[in-house]
Order: sequence, then structure tokens, then C-alpha cells
Amino acid sequence: MLSPAAWATKTRLEISEVATADGSVAVIPVGSIEQHGHHLPVATDTFLADAVSHHGAERVIDDFPILVTPPVWTGYSPHHMSLGGTLTVELTDLLDVLTHLAESAIEHGFDAICFVNGHGGNASLVDNTVSVIGKEHSEVEVTGVTYFSLAASFIDNIRESELGGMAHGGEFETSLMLHLYPELVKEDAPAEYLEDPYDHGGKDLVEGGPLSSYRPFEDFSDSGAIGDPSLASAEKGEEIMSRLGDELETIFQQIHDEAK
Amino acid sequence: MLSPAAWATKTRLEISEVATADGSVAVIPVGSIEQHGHHLPVATDTFLADAVSHHGAERVIDDFPILVTPPVWTGYSPHHMSLGGTLTVELTDLLDVLTHLAESAIEHGFDAICFVNGHGGNASLVDNTVSVIGKEHSEVEVTGVTYFSLAASFIDNIRESELGGMAHGGEFETSLMLHLYPELVKEDAPAEYLEDPYDHGGKDLVEGGPLSSYRPFEDFSDSGAIGDPSLASAEKGEEIMSRLGDELETIFQQIHDEAK
Amino acid sequence: MLSPAAWATKTRLEISEVATADGSVAVIPVGSIEQHGHHLPVATDTFLADAVSHHGAERVIDDFPILVTPPVWTGYSPHHMSLGGTLTVELTDLLDVLTHLAESAIEHGFDAICFVNGHGGNASLVDNTVSVIGKEHSEVEVTGVTYFSLAASFIDNIRESELGGMAHGGEFETSLMLHLYPELVKEDAPAEYLEDPYDHGGKDLVEGGPLSSYRPFEDFSDSGAIGDPSLASAEKGEEIMSRLGDELETIFQQIHDEAK
Amino acid sequence: MLSPAAWATKTRLEISEVATADGSVAVIPVGSIEQHGHHLPVATDTFLADAVSHHGAERVIDDFPILVTPPVWTGYSPHHMSLGGTLTVELTDLLDVLTHLAESAIEHGFDAICFVNGHGGNASLVDNTVSVIGKEHSEVEVTGVTYFSLAASFIDNIRESELGGMAHGGEFETSLMLHLYPELVKEDAPAEYLEDPYDHGGKDLVEGGPLSSYRPFEDFSDSGAIGDPSLASAEKGEEIMSRLGDELETIFQQIHDEAK
Amino acid sequence: MLSPAAWATKTRLEISEVATADGSVAVIPVGSIEQHGHHLPVATDTFLADAVSHHGAERVIDDFPILVTPPVWTGYSPHHMSLGGTLTVELTDLLDVLTHLAESAIEHGFDAICFVNGHGGNASLVDNTVSVIGKEHSEVEVTGVTYFSLAASFIDNIRESELGGMAHGGEFETSLMLHLYPELVKEDAPAEYLEDPYDHGGKDLVEGGPLSSYRPFEDFSDSGAIGDPSLASAEKGEEIMSRLGDELETIFQQIHDEAK
Amino acid sequence: MLSPAAWATKTRLEISEVATADGSVAVIPVGSIEQHGHHLPVATDTFLADAVSHHGAERVIDDFPILVTPPVWTGYSPHHMSLGGTLTVELTDLLDVLTHLAESAIEHGFDAICFVNGHGGNASLVDNTVSVIGKEHSEVEVTGVTYFSLAASFIDNIRESELGGMAHGGEFETSLMLHLYPELVKEDAPAEYLEDPYDHGGKDLVEGGPLSSYRPFEDFSDSGAIGDPSLASAEKGEEIMSRLGDELETIFQQIHDEAK
Repeated sequence: MLSPAAWATKTRLEISEVATADGSVAVIPVGSIEQHGHHLPVATDTFLADAVSHHGAERVIDDFPILVTPPVWTGYSPHHMSLGGTLTVELTDLLDVLTHLAESAIEHGFDAICFVNGHGGNASLVDNTVSVIGKEHSEVEVTGVTYFSLAASFIDNIRESELGGMAHGGEFETSLMLHLYPELVKEDAPAEYLEDPYDHGGKDLVEGGPLSSYRPFEDFSDSGAIGDPSLASAEKGEEIMSRLGDELETIFQQIHDEAK
Repeated sequence: MLSPAAWATKTRLEISEVATADGSVAVIPVGSIEQHGHHLPVATDTFLADAVSHHGAERVIDDFPILVTPPVWTGYSPHHMSLGGTLTVELTDLLDVLTHLAESAIEHGFDAICFVNGHGGNASLVDNTVSVIGKEHSEVEVTGVTYFSLAASFIDNIRESELGGMAHGGEFETSLMLHLYPELVKEDAPAEYLEDPYDHGGKDLVEGGPLSSYRPFEDFSDSGAIGDPSLASAEKGEEIMSRLGDELETIFQQIHDEAK
Repeated sequence: MLSPAAWATKTRLEISEVATADGSVAVIPVGSIEQHGHHLPVATDTFLADAVSHHGAERVIDDFPILVTPPVWTGYSPHHMSLGGTLTVELTDLLDVLTHLAESAIEHGFDAICFVNGHGGNASLVDNTVSVIGKEHSEVEVTGVTYFSLAASFIDNIRESELGGMAHGGEFETSLMLHLYPELVKEDAPAEYLEDPYDHGGKDLVEGGPLSSYRPFEDFSDSGAIGDPSLASAEKGEEIMSRLGDELETIFQQIHDEAK
Repeated sequence: MLSPAAWATKTRLEISEVATADGSVAVIPVGSIEQHGHHLPVATDTFLADAVSHHGAERVIDDFPILVTPPVWTGYSPHHMSLGGTLTVELTDLLDVLTHLAESAIEHGFDAICFVNGHGGNASLVDNTVSVIGKEHSEVEVTGVTYFSLAASFIDNIRESELGGMAHGGEFETSLMLHLYPELVKEDAPAEYLEDPYDHGGKDLVEGGPLSSYRPFEDFSDSGAIGDPSLASAEKGEEIMSRLGDELETIFQQIHDEAK
Repeated sequence: MLSPAAWATKTRLEISEVATADGSVAVIPVGSIEQHGHHLPVATDTFLADAVSHHGAERVIDDFPILVTPPVWTGYSPHHMSLGGTLTVELTDLLDVLTHLAESAIEHGFDAICFVNGHGGNASLVDNTVSVIGKEHSEVEVTGVTYFSLAASFIDNIRESELGGMAHGGEFETSLMLHLYPELVKEDAPAEYLEDPYDHGGKDLVEGGPLSSYRPFEDFSDSGAIGDPSLASAEKGEEIMSRLGDELETIFQQIHDEAK
Repeated sequence: MLSPAAWATKTRLEISEVATADGSVAVIPVGSIEQHGHHLPVATDTFLADAVSHHGAERVIDDFPILVTPPVWTGYSPHHMSLGGTLTVELTDLLDVLTHLAESAIEHGFDAICFVNGHGGNASLVDNTVSVIGKEHSEVEVTGVTYFSLAASFIDNIRESELGGMAHGGEFETSLMLHLYPELVKEDAPAEYLEDPYDHGGKDLVEGGPLSSYRPFEDFSDSGAIGDPSLASAEKGEEIMSRLGDELETIFQQIHDEAK
């Protein structure tokens, strides 16, 4: 909470100083409260979106003005409801909330907005939100990224699981949680691979596919997780976090350069 | 974060076990990110709504099933925008978000909902939300309270400030923050009393009035705070928290009794 | 209908003359069509909000420009539906209607808006509406009051009933109706007191409480009324109306002073 | 107000008795508060929709169960705003309000709904509302009529003005107001005929045309009225009201027959 | 598709050239996909609205700037759903879509909008849309017409059927389809006349009535059509189209004259 | 238009026969009317989404029940508005329209929905729509695909342009248009490559990137197109269409298999 980039713990004048500096960037993490199988807490996506946002921001905070708002945890997860533990809002609620948060930051003087999303079910909505806000505020640089898609460029050197092992609560997310919040991870979670009827569907957090389909999560998984958490480790989590930091550092820097 | 009542850190099965027990209560703290003068962080209302919710829930968690969701920090604060630091959504967004969170909890089996609000600007909306949800879910006990209004019954024995000293960021909230997050409170905040043109307006966090009016906060206050933070102390904060705990314990117990 | 402050019976030029005068005040009564037990008509809240608005406005109409629109009778009363006779809209409909009426008056030149509400179920929504309109029209004085809450300062000298006797259709409202519309009041309505499970709930029209809860009205009352109408009298009604007039005179005057 | 068909002045049980009788009809008058030139009050459309509804209902109230709600005066009149005095809501607000009022009546047991509209600007919206409600409540007879269109069958025997003389505030409406509320009609209103650029536009209250167009009312008229009020008389008003009563009697009877 | 007035097949510069010319008119056909009995395809209303729009536009395209957008086929037809084949949206969706299409055209420079509607269920909504757009864009000439209502002035010389024979899928629409798309019309469709319980209801496509009511189409018709298609012929269709062209030519010319 | 899979040209009974057969698939093409540079018509995305949908459906129509609705051309294209020719709706309008079309098809008995989208700006919204419909209709197979993303698997064997040459109106879309509608393609369109400041942005129609950003199209391109139309040919278009047909055939078959 005491990250130097934390919007929440600052006073209005401290925030205004950042907001009105040239090329200022407001980062808005977006997560969910959603079941993640038997071994991970329901706030996993929120914890991770928040952690990677701060990790990225702290790398550049000495170079240009940047703040990270609290994570929006009221995400869109209807497909997880049937397994318990999930809190979901409607899609248009999330669109409206993200839009008004960004517009608040813009009103205070921020020159750029970057949503850092940690939940697959929010990903398309975040893309849409970027478009809706960007249309109304053409003078501001409006961007969004679902953080785990950044791993596509480096994950093959880290992963041990085959394709499908890094899906919901699998080797990828479990490794990050073991690195950041080991006390919240339960042991002995088995591998569970998705049997998707579609050749063109997404396979993994880091490898999507062109076809979207809808199915309640209970049809996919007994535990509520998909992938292979048994291959996860805190060491992998640390390396993934470091590499994600590299990517976000580049992104935040380029956003700042555009927004100046 | 590791409160035994924290929804966020549990797995789906741990939450389901509470949800489906008889007379289960889901507490939803509601706050804001909003300027609180020069001496308090913008997340003050969120921190306090969250803290009192957990404080109350921990008193009864051994007696009946209860969980506290993460605090909803996306509150309604348009009147604070002009002073910087505030993030506000629209009123109807907040109504929708609170409604869908409650409905998620109800779908998982909770028998009662209690919103614990920490921001004056949300108070009427929380009342309305109780009505909207209650109408749709008559089988569930739906309730809401703005926590500082609970202090009316005991605060005269604690306060040193005159009427008006316990308004936005005054003796009351500053004392609670000094008790809970002293590292986030800046020193030497002066008293600043509201000059309200209306005899029938609200005077204080703990003493409202029948007349509502609207004015940007900058018209009320130079610093952004109203009241007397110079009279605040951690000791007062501890006592206030303890007495709020008494009140919430009664409320949660009575909600549970009704919901059984 | 032929009140000198009645918007409805005037021509456009007559209204424009008031609207464009300095410090002009538009009063918008807000009521409901909602069951009031066996002895009062369903339009009670609408009749009373309208009557007290005109009573207050007529006291000041020679001093400054003021008009009273027709009463908005399309209120929010879902909790009364099960007992018959009630006509309710959705909460957001009422918000939108009140907002657009106020904005029409503002467009014509009124410098202040004052909603005078007569129905408990509308009270929080009227507060919210004040905030929504005020945010958009900072140049205008926007206010709202639920008229019976003004009685807290004087009612103890008038009432005979104990706490709880002046709730829905009780000693208070029945007295006002006997004063204003005796032909619409049926005799011999018995006392019926609320058994509320909550220590922190509201007790009476004139004494609220910090905790909101929702329950269909049929769970509270056999007749549909709560309180003691048997203690009502036209004389009490006349005195209450006179004292409410004092309070509203002060409020309208202070609104006008602010709006000039 | 003391019409035997008035919903507002009855208690819940009196209304329920009508609602649950076989073939019960709820009539909802719909008007506006909108400028009507220099000689008529702004509530003209509301007064007239209400009066003709009661006039029609009283003819049949001994034959079958029927009640008339208070008139909805929050109509749709943006094109009249520029001339002052008008209070308008948004089109979708009116749709929602009418829908929820009708649904309230349906929930209480009414077998038929009939909107009786008195304002041209509401006419298409009332048609749409009939469709929206009817779709959701196929078991109920849902209908709507703009009352002055009923005059097409008989008006040629009464009118003295040429085509265009019975438009907004002209011979027709002024006659009805002279009959019902002579104290609210100012004298010496001159004739003012519309110069419409379109051959296919509407000509008169009682003779529409296929082409809709939009123009602020100030482009049409200096006074705010269109037509010839100088030809109006209370006698004509009485005859028009009587003939409208004939038409509404037939309509209400046929609605009741269908709804049984 | 290769009509000289077709918006769809042009490039952005070709469209801009028309849009920015003086008095430019954008025609937006509005239809539906809705069952039309056993003999006509479900896109009948869309085909005909599109065809008459182009027929009218081609008559004037050498005289002033005019383009016809693709037909909006996502109409409002809930009352046809029960018979199969129909695709309907909500009323407010259609309002929003038409509004935003018109506003796009206005943003590009068009001076006038004319909706040409081909479906009875859309007619009131198109009128409303004209009002909503016109209110926001008073500088633009906004108009709408349901094309078959233009036939009232000439149809008696063409029709063979009695009143009621030119309703949904009857002599009128079938003749137009035989003229334009004979390969899509199935033979031997019998006459089926509406038995309407209301004296004041609409009788025919070309002769409406003052009373609106709602009933699923299956209650009106076995086949899904109403009227007498057996009297239809391609020759009548050709003549109707020619006469509709005369009317639309006048309308488009007058719109252009107003918009200059 | 006379495709054997065309919903529009069939009667209600013909459609019902398909809808109620086992494993029936309703394909809904989604396009836009949006500027495509100097050489392509504004309806390009609509033409292509429609054409590939029919091409795919015709390959399987003898094997299982499938129909293609008319293409939804009212897409989301705010970023193209500044260049002229574009007609855009709001994002939530498109969500609502697609949802209600799908729900109409579901009501008639279709067991599966497949949106085939042809416009990048709609892609995320189509994903979201799949989720919204799927949540409400878990008994139906709901899917969506943006057709050009299917080309990723085969395009390297066809393309001559480097990365970036197959963006908006480039080698890919121009080839398809030359194959299908050569008369609508203007010659001599030059190559224009995007200079994107972001390493993580999308590069091409067929190669996206993890970062979303918003910028008016005029900032990207002088002509309004991006890519290299000069390398397009009808032969390439034919081959692309054939290979897209292979992919869609697989997708439709797998959807049918799941929906049975």
C-alpha cells in the first residue's frame, strides 16, 4: 500500500502535482473477484493486476510522472458464478465505471490513461473502454493491456507445461501468487486440461484464438481451475514478474512519450 | 488483508461454506477516493469503511457465518472534483455496481446483505440501493448503514470540538486515521468550520439536518477539510472504533437473527 | 388550484416574468400514490406535499419571485405494492423526471430549485437528485427537503402519541388530512405500532435511524398504516401546518438569499 | 377531484375492489405543462386530458369497473421550451413512467389499460408505450388514444374556422377551456395560422398528415398558439365535450368487452 | 445496389462531396425482418422501404444533392414474433440506432435527414426519433414518413379490395413485391380480413384510426398476413410505385428547399 | 440475395423449418459503413462479412440446418468519423442490437448463434456480446469470430506485402473486393504504412498485439487506408475466400456438433 506510485495514500495536492506535470500517466489496474479453483484465492486477478501495475510503475517513477489507482475489483465474470465465490457486475457497469474513473483522472490533468487488466473476462471490455474514452478525449493518450498477453514474447523460456497449462489458475498465475502471496496458495493442486471442442478457440492465457464462445466454467473444469498449477513455483513467478516489468516499462515509457 | 472475515483471500469452497450456512451475512463496505484536505489521504473513507466492517465482523465471526467483501472504492463524489485527487463515478453506476455485487452474494446463498458506507456522498444512494435490492429479493434481509451516523449515540462523551468540528476530515475521521494509519496522516492541520447559509442544513458527520443542498466543496473550505483535525488523537480514534464495534456488533447480530 | 403561486394555471409570459426576476425560486412538490391504510386516500402524500409547498410559498410570494409546479405524484413505492392501490415507478425514472423538470425551470431562468417531498420512500432519491442537478448547474441553488422531517423541532409540543405513533398514516398525516381534506378521511382507524427488529432503525416520520432495511409493508402492518390515527384531529393538523409554514418560510427565504 | 372514478381519493381497499372485478379498466390521462400562447394556461393539455377521461368514465361507471388515475403531467415538449413556461422530460422517461404506472395497475388486477392523451407531442410515444406494455402483458388489453383525434368524425358540424384553425390553443382547445375553466382563459387572443412548407404535414389537431418534421415552436407562431381562438366559445366547448364523451363511451365499453 | 444515390457503394470523398453541398438530403430507409404470411419473404418491409427511397431519390438526384443509406432492417416487431421468422430489437435500440445514424450524417455536413419507413410497427418510433434528433440539431431539417401512408391520396383509383384489403401483406404490399421481386412471391395467397373489436382502430395500411391497441399477430390472422393478396398484380405495383415516386419527389424537393 | 442460406428472402414457415431442426445454426454477419480510403466503398466491411458468411454457409447447407441473416451494417466506427462517409452508432447500441437479434433467433428455435464480424472496431464488442448472450442462454451455443483473424493460419503463403500491408483497406481487403465487386474498386491506390509508436500495438488485420490505444484515423493515414492495396489482385481474393471458406466450414461444423 505504501508504494510510491499509490494514488490511494496520497493527499489531493500530492496527486495534483503529478497530474499536472507534463506527460503524466494514470494507471488503472482492473481485476475481478472470481473463483480460481481450490488452490487460489478469489482475488487472484485483482492482486496480480495491482502488483504488476505497481511493479511497472516503480521502474519509471523517477523518470516521469505516474500514479496507480486502487485496483478495480468489480469485474465481469458471469461464467464463474456457478462455482461459488465470484462477485460479478454487468458488462456495461464495468464500462461505465472505468470510463468515469478515467475521466476523473483526465479532469485532474493526467495526459495518459493505461488500464492494466488481469482478468480474461474483462479483456474485450477494456479494449472497448479505451475506444469509448479515446473518442471523447482525443487530447489524451488512452490505452489498455491485459497483462498476461505480454508474456507471449518470453514465456516459452520459462514454462514447463504444454499448451493449455497456463490457463485459469494454472502454472502462470499460480507461480505469480507463490512469488507474491505464498500464504494464500493451497498446495497439491492437480493439473486439469481444457477439452475445447473448437479448433479455433483460445488455448491458454498467453495464446488466444480467433473464435469466442460462451460456456459456464463448470463445463470446463471440476476444480474451477484450468492448466497445471503443479508445475508452478515462486522462482518462476519471480522471473515472470521481472519480465512483465520489462514489458510494462517499455509500454509506460512509450505512453509517456506520446502523451508529452 | 488476512482478516478471518475477508472474502478476497478465500477460495470458492471456503466462501460457499459460509454463504450456505443458516443466517449468513455478507458485509459490503462502500467508500470513495476523494480529497480529504491537506492532512488525510484520498482513500480515507475507503480505509475507514473497510476497517470498521472488519472490526464489527470479527466480533461476531465465531457466532455466526459472516464475510466482508473488499471495499467498493468507486464512490460518488462530484462535489469534491474541483479540489483534485478525487475519482468519482456516476450515481447510477454506483447503484448498479452495489446491486450486482449483492445479487452475486445472494446467488451464492447469503441470507443477508449489509452495506457499511463510509462516505456522506454515498449515503442516500446506499439507502436507495437497499430498497432496490430488497424489492427484488424479498427472501433476503437487505440493510445498509453509514457508519459514522452510529456515533450519534456516544460521541458527545468523546468529542472536544463543538458542533461542526466532526465534519469532512475533522476530529472524528482524523482520530480514526491516527489510530489505524498514523503514517498516512500529516500533522498541523488547522480547524476550519463550515459557514452554512441554511439553518436546516447538516452540521456535522454525526448530526445531519433535513435540508439537502449542493455546492462544490471549494465553496466550503480552503483546505478541502471541514472541522477540527487539531483536536484529533489516536486515543480518541481507538475509543471511537471500539464504540462503533459495539454498535455494529448489535446490528450484525440482529441482521443474522432476522435472516435465519 | 388558484393559488397565486401555481405554475399550472399561468400563461407562459406570467411564468417567464417570475422566472427571470432576481433570486427566483421554483418549488417542485414530490409525492406518491400509495396505500395509506383503511382511512386515508392513496394520494395523501401528494396532497400534503402540494399543500405545504403552497402554504410556504404564499407566505413569501409578496417578498420575492416564487412558483410551485404541480406535484409529481409518480413516486417510488415498491414496498407498498402488495397491499393494493399503489402506483410506483422505478427509482431511476423518478431521478430522471425530477432532473428534467428542474432543468426545464433552470432553462427558463429560475435561480433556485427546491424539491418539497412528502413521501419517505422518495427521500433518499430526492437527496440524490439534488446532487445530480447541482453538479451540472453550479450556478443555480439546488435544494430538497422532506417536509415532515421539519417537524422534529416542534412536534413534541403537539403530539399525544408515543414514539412510533406518527409513522405512515398515523397521528401526524391524519391530522393534516383532517385539517385539509376531512371529507377524504374515514373514521375509526385504530392504532397500530411497528415492531421493528432493529434498534437502529427509524421509529417515526419525524425520528429516523441510521439503519436502512427493506421489507414489504404487509410485514409491518395489517391495515397498511403505522402509528396512531385515533389521536389525530383537525386542530392538530392546523397547528402542524402553521408550524411547517414557519419552517418553510425560513427555508425559502434563505434559498432566495443565496440565489440572488 | 371528487369524481366517483378518481383513483387518487380512494383507499387501497376501494381501489382493489374495482381492480379485481371482471373486465376492470384503468384510464391514465396523459398531458403536459407547456406554453399555450398568451390566452391559455400551461396546464391546458393536462386539464383537458383529465376532464375528458373523467367525463367518459362517468358515463360508464355504473356499468362496469373503471377508475381514472391522476393525469401524468410530465410530458414531452422540447419544441415548446424556447417560449417559456414549459416543463419537459425526456421521451424515454415518459415511456418508462407510463409503463410502470400501467404495470402497477396490472399488478393490482386491472384487466385493461387505456391511456387518454391530450398533447400532440406525446401521441407517438403513447402509441409506442401501448406496444411495449402489450408485448409484456399479453393477458391484458392495452390501448391508447389521443383524445382530440376522436373529434375528426364530428368536428365539421361544430367548427367555424377553416383548416388550421383548430391547432395548438386554437378554436378547439380554447372552446373546451372556456367551457371547463373560463376563469383561466384570457380574452382577445387573435387568430394565427401556420405556414407549413410541407404539403404532407399535419394541418390541425384533428387532421394530421403523413410527414413528421421538427421545428421549434417559435418558428411557427409569435404568440405560441396556432389556430383561431377568437372563434372559440363555451357553448362549442360543451358540445365538443359531449361528443367526445360519446366516442370515449364507445371505446371504454369495447375495451371492457375485450378485457372480460 | 448500383443506384446513383447509394451511400454504401461510394468512397468517403464521393460522399463528402454530396454531404457538403448546399441543401444536401440524407435519406435513411427503415424496414424490418418480419413474417409476412405464407406468400411474402420476411424482408418485405425492408425491400420496399429501400426501393421507394431509391425510386424517389433517383427522380431528383440531378437537381440537388441526395444520398440513400442502406436500409435499417433491425426494426421493432414484437407482435410478429410468435409466428416465426421475425427478428426484432427493442424500441429504444431502434431509437438510438436511428439517432446515431442521423447524427453521423449531420456531422459529415448533411443539411437534412429524411427517414422513409416501411413498417407500421416502426411508424410511431420514427416520429419520435424525428423529434429527438430535431431538438438536438435545430440547424438541420429533420423529417420522417411512413411511405404507405402517402398512398392515401391516390390509392382509391387503384385498389380493388375493400377497406382492410391493403393491410399487412395484402393487395398493396403484394403488388409492389410482384412488381419488384416477383421471384420472391409465392402464389395463391388467400384473402384474410381483420376482425377488429374496435370501431376506432386502424383499418388498413393506408387508413389508420385514432385508437392504438396491442395484440399478438397470431390473434389476427392464421397465415400471418391480413388483407387480400389475391387481388395483387405487378401492374398495380408498378403504378403504386410510380405514384409514390410523385409524392416522394415533392417531399424531397420541399425538404431540400427548407434545408438550403 | 438469392443464396439458399438467406434468411431475408424466405417466408416465416421456411425459416421455422430450419430453426426447429436439430443443431440449427443462425449466422449473423456484422459489418460497418466506414471510410476505406480513396479506392474502396464505405460498405466494404459489410460486403465482406456478408460474403464470407454465405460462402461458409453454402458449403455446409446440405449437411445441417443453417441460415444467414442480413448483415448488421450499423457498426461502431467513431475513429473513422473525421474522414467522412462513416455511419457509426454507440457501442452499447450495437451490443443491444446484436443481443436482441440473437435472442429473436433463439426464440424461434435456433440451437446456435455465430456472429461473423468484418470490422476491427466491432471485434471486442462481438466478443462481449457472445458473453452477454451466452450467460442468459446457456442452452444455446453462442459464438463469434472476426473473419480476417482466421487468415493468420494461411495468409503467409498468399501475401506479398510485408507486415502492415494487410491493414485497413490494404492488400487483403482490396483483393477480396476485386474478387467480389471489382466494379466498386478504384485503381491506383498507393501503399501507406502505419507508423505506430507502440512496440506492443497491432500491426495488421491478421496480426494483432496486446496493447489497445485510441487515435482518430486521420492521424494514421492520409488516404484513410493503411497497407498496400497496390499488391491486391482478384486472384488473391479468390484464394483468400476459398481458404476462409475452409476455416468457416470447420467452425460451422463444430458449432453444429456442439449444438446438437
